[in-house]
Amino acid sequence: MARERSFWGWGWADRFPDDAGRRALAAHLASMLGIDRPEPRPAPRIDGIALPPPALAIPPALAPFCTAAANERISHCWGKGYRDLVRGFAGDFSGAPDLVARPRSEEELERVLGWCAQSGVAAIPFGGGTSVVGGVERPPRGGRFAAAVAVDTGALDRVLEVDPVSRSARIQAGATGPALESQLAGHGLTLRHFPQSFEFSTLGGWIATRAGGHFATLYTHIDDLVESVRMITPRGTWESRRLPASGAGPAPDRLVLGSEGILGVVTEAWMRVQARPRHRASATVFFDEFPAAVDAARAIAQAGLYPANCRLLDPTEARINLVAADGSAVLLLAFESADHALEAWVGRALAIAIAHHGRCPDGPAIRDDGVHPSPSGAAGSWRAAFLEAPYLQNTLVSLGMIADTFETACTWDRFPGLHQAVCAAVKDAIRRAGAGANGGVLGCRFTHVYPDGPAPYYTFIASGRPGAELEQWAEIKRAASEALAANGATITHHHAVGRLHRPWYDRERPPLFAQALRAAKAAVDPAGVLNPGVLID
Amino acid sequence: MARERSFWGWGWADRFPDDAGRRALAAHLASMLGIDRPEPRPAPRIDGIALPPPALAIPPALAPFCTAAANERISHCWGKGYRDLVRGFAGDFSGAPDLVARPRSEEELERVLGWCAQSGVAAIPFGGGTSVVGGVERPPRGGRFAAAVAVDTGALDRVLEVDPVSRSARIQAGATGPALESQLAGHGLTLRHFPQSFEFSTLGGWIATRAGGHFATLYTHIDDLVESVRMITPRGTWESRRLPASGAGPAPDRLVLGSEGILGVVTEAWMRVQARPRHRASATVFFDEFPAAVDAARAIAQAGLYPANCRLLDPTEARINLVAADGSAVLLLAFESADHALEAWVGRALAIAIAHHGRCPDGPAIRDDGVHPSPSGAAGSWRAAFLEAPYLQNTLVSLGMIADTFETACTWDRFPGLHQAVCAAVKDAIRRAGAGANGGVLGCRFTHVYPDGPAPYYTFIASGRPGAELEQWAEIKRAASEALAANGATITHHHAVGRLHRPWYDRERPPLFAQALRAAKAAVDPAGVLNPGVLID
Repeated sequence: MARERSFWGWGWADRFPDDAGRRALAAHLASMLGIDRPEPRPAPRIDGIALPPPALAIPPALAPFCTAAANERISHCWGKGYRDLVRGFAGDFSGAPDLVARPRSEEELERVLGWCAQSGVAAIPFGGGTSVVGGVERPPRGGRFAAAVAVDTGALDRVLEVDPVSRSARIQAGATGPALESQLAGHGLTLRHFPQSFEFSTLGGWIATRAGGHFATLYTHIDDLVESVRMITPRGTWESRRLPASGAGPAPDRLVLGSEGILGVVTEAWMRVQARPRHRASATVFFDEFPAAVDAARAIAQAGLYPANCRLLDPTEARINLVAADGSAVLLLAFESADHALEAWVGRALAIAIAHHGRCPDGPAIRDDGVHPSPSGAAGSWRAAFLEAPYLQNTLVSLGMIADTFETACTWDRFPGLHQAVCAAVKDAIRRAGAGANGGVLGCRFTHVYPDGPAPYYTFIASGRPGAELEQWAEIKRAASEALAANGATITHHHAVGRLHRPWYDRERPPLFAQALRAAKAAVDPAGVLNPGVLID
Repeated sequence: MARERSFWGWGWADRFPDDAGRRALAAHLASMLGIDRPEPRPAPRIDGIALPPPALAIPPALAPFCTAAANERISHCWGKGYRDLVRGFAGDFSGAPDLVARPRSEEELERVLGWCAQSGVAAIPFGGGTSVVGGVERPPRGGRFAAAVAVDTGALDRVLEVDPVSRSARIQAGATGPALESQLAGHGLTLRHFPQSFEFSTLGGWIATRAGGHFATLYTHIDDLVESVRMITPRGTWESRRLPASGAGPAPDRLVLGSEGILGVVTEAWMRVQARPRHRASATVFFDEFPAAVDAARAIAQAGLYPANCRLLDPTEARINLVAADGSAVLLLAFESADHALEAWVGRALAIAIAHHGRCPDGPAIRDDGVHPSPSGAAGSWRAAFLEAPYLQNTLVSLGMIADTFETACTWDRFPGLHQAVCAAVKDAIRRAGAGANGGVLGCRFTHVYPDGPAPYYTFIASGRPGAELEQWAEIKRAASEALAANGATITHHHAVGRLHRPWYDRERPPLFAQALRAAKAAVDPAGVLNPGVLID
């Protein structure tokens, strides 16, 4: 029997804890936040969901790969952000698409898009459905679109071709992380793009949203791993040439990257893959003061060492993820290579960290035998918490907690002011929203670092009022987003824009770029049916 | 007295050799190519140039910064490609703009563009004027545009602001390489973007053409050094936010990069700068066989070592640049760092090269004292030849020779077939064009290398028939470009498209991208006055 996905929350249904497990977490939250123990609420049942009836019947041309079944409409309704989990837990699937199409070929995909364009039906590209920004929702009912089809790329999940000389592979866009990695492994290759959503998100989704991956430096976004892209638009096929680099006009792929399904549906891409790493070196560095740790991360980012991991946890992140309980900030450093031993690299990075008052009691850990041992100590705790986090969010929602993350990037000179402003704004909003008199819990980590700035990632937990959680959350989210905008940071480093970030995205991008993008969209999607409301109107 | 620029050729006028120097080169060419000694022809004199009269008078609003002086019209007529040098040497300046505007502020630039849009006058953005692809030419007389203004950004040449924490600097687009480097040097910083045109080309030109620079790996194009861009369009100002990275929609800067002046005129950019390197390590490796050297370059490019230099010269390049006369291919490796000593890096790269049958008789050279010694030996010979090459082209043109370069990029799997096809096509075209029964001289080097492919750069020399050189050259250029297109390579890695590469660019880019780009241009330049004919019609 196939393992069942949660219809309302993140991941596998069997990972949702029982009542005893939830009560244990509730006790922990009560002590951490200084609140009464939240009460576990019963999880929703799929057979109790009331769905609006489909606004149209399946057209015969799409019948072989299209469905209006309730369970499919439910599982293609929302993404996996906090708001989606709250709605799902409450049994609210009012945004369900009318139909779900699952084309098995580009020809079938063209058929769906052609039909949508002709019929004025919104086409919502759907990869793994893990958007946390409302990127896979239908536009509101009662608006321009009376009907919407979710276009699920999941049937296109093969690695079609491998070029071991150039270290490239042609991969279909519907392949999830595990699906493409297992196919590449047969060739001794790997893409090494491991976003937190890795298990369920797809290559096409990564490309459409400029996903951030495994590497803390250098090849941080999927953008850098794309050699060429093939996309189906309502006006036909858009395909770039396989090239390691080019200077011929503005890069076509860069208009596809981040286009979030408004220009077309990516069907395949040639991706830059790599040999599996054999050499690994890592170090965990503790700092008494977060600012000193920030300076260390900056110095390492500017040193030209290019660690695969350079993740800085502030004391709260370190504490809530069980990495350090003593108020230290923690810098997790790691290097990897398929080619060479890494003593010189990790040694120099560690020397920089220590020069910035870091402590590395265990020294660096080095392995040159190709074995990737399960990380232990702080790095191991971190990894376990990282993989568990989306499931934890399910549980927190079931306890009525408000728990979400947001992320950004800014130049180094702006980080101290930004960080202070964000912390003040979020804690203040939590109080104002009645979600915690003490301002809740707010932690910060750097997911990626660049020579000119970090990508800070924030997590907050507060206590919701039953039925008012989404309003409370919206107030906190708004305060956070305003603080980012006011301090010259981006509304998203790798979570994308979707519908959730639109107000701040609209202020961030050059207005003339918005006009250019609108014109470009009109050229490839004249009926404007692709993911309406995302990025532009 | 200010040093005088050549009005017809590359660089400083005083660098043009006297007759004795030219006769010495002629003798060398005769023996190298097996031809009669070419005869030095007299250089043109600027006072002998017959210019078409300006098609319009200077409008009063532009008078303070606009001229119709003959010498300015002549120096803003062509770029510096082979075709430009031949036309210039022949005294042909029929493509001279009617006026030359040199705005001293963004307000003056807006005034020029506004006037052009209103009057239907073509506006040709002009940075250093070093285009080798017809990127700074007016559209043909008798077409849609009766008049054209060259818009010279040279008055905007300041480093306006430096952020030492984020290692960024706000630099005006008209600054040449030496101008911006000398201003940055006062802050202990450097951009380290050293294209061959460095002395005369400008930051704005680099951005508009996606220039290729100093670094053989990683930060190869100017694209990677851009933090944000400010551009004036006929519809107003386009300015992106300073960010180290973002995932918010398609990257706005990436539409500006490579736009070659068709969307607007870049006025300034925040650029990622760096500390000056203190540590240097280099090695020169000789190979008996070019294919083994190619494999070595590939292995180094895929090793994650990121050399600053990884330039591979084939035996012909090595010979004509006096790097190696014995038929060896030569790989010039260099690493640099402001942070750490580089033994481990150069040691591993050298080990890879030697494992591919390379010979490094002198071993690596390592300096950790911040001193950059004048490179000696093969690297020194290469550097001298590299800097001299554009001047050499002047001299070759004056001798009636056909001498040009073209460059590309392709995936590693395609390189052997591409190289064979290019060599056969060019040598065949040289014979067919009556430019050398032995097929002339054709050399290849890699200027940049990527994990998934090299950027090969070709140089050819053949003997022209007086008066027929441009036809002969066009036949060779066409054959080379067709070979690139037929073998899946790009028409340009870093020379841009301009008017020269249009036919092949049109076939290379996705047709739907062309439509999107056309629509985007119409949004910001509705009158279509900016650099007409470049990239799109």
